Amino acid sequence: MTTPAAYDDANIFAKILRGELPAHRVYEDEHTLAFMDIMPRGDGHCLVLPKAPSRNILDVEPDDLAHVMVTVQKLARAVKAAFNADGVTIQQFNESAGGQVVFHLHVHVIPRFDGLALKPHTGTMEDPDVLKANAEKIRAAL
Amino acid sequence: MTTPAAYDDANIFAKILRGELPAHRVYEDEHTLAFMDIMPRGDGHCLVLPKAPSRNILDVEPDDLAHVMVTVQKLARAVKAAFNADGVTIQQFNESAGGQVVFHLHVHVIPRFDGLALKPHTGTMEDPDVLKANAEKIRAAL
Repeated sequence: MTTPAAYDDANIFAKILRGELPAHRVYEDEHTLAFMDIMPRGDGHCLVLPKAPSRNILDVEPDDLAHVMVTVQKLARAVKAAFNADGVTIQQFNESAGGQVVFHLHVHVIPRFDGLALKPHTGTMEDPDVLKANAEKIRAAL
Repeated sequence: MTTPAAYDDANIFAKILRGELPAHRVYEDEHTLAFMDIMPRGDGHCLVLPKAPSRNILDVEPDDLAHVMVTVQKLARAVKAAFNADGVTIQQFNESAGGQVVFHLHVHVIPRFDGLALKPHTGTMEDPDVLKANAEKIRAAL
């Protein structure tokens, strides 16, 4: 097995977890935090993170990953209900070649609609008012 | 919360789990099975399933999902090592609009390489000899 790369706590999600950067938060418990992706691939696209530091799936503690997935399931159900979505796509990227941009483990939860393709990954910044309104819809559905 | 659609045990992954259809198996334990995707989006693309019936993330028992993710982590590390990959992409699709084609919960584990894009989802059938050789590489790395 190759050695995973080290965790760097200067990443932007670590700053959000420490409250040093804002986010449109939708859910929080002892082990996980969820907030809106600011460059959504579709309306309601949110992210679920473990609070414990881990770079990605290659180094995460199995218990932290399990906590994350419990929250991912909650959010998948909530975004489907909140946006009356037809489906949900889950993505999780590891290392740059795998699509990872921020190096704190996170899982993408994206509501999907019949006939509507995903926008590009890390495409356009969303209007903060739209993110705020979508976060409210998700919190109401949780 | 909307009611999830029902599980139909005539799906092809249920048939693989029952041994009614063949698969290039790479890993099995009490709760999960992993085998090669026959229409890979890249070399080494494999799938992890819970043995217990569930349609997708909307209806799966949290314990079954946790078992699946333990196996996903094992496979992510194994495919990265087996193919000397630069990264790993994890995908999990729910309902047709979310990208789901077979309605037994499964997680895609895809080795990734710098500069090499994913092939289309459910694109071309791979040569069985290639799948067999890739399955052997993954088993050797587990």
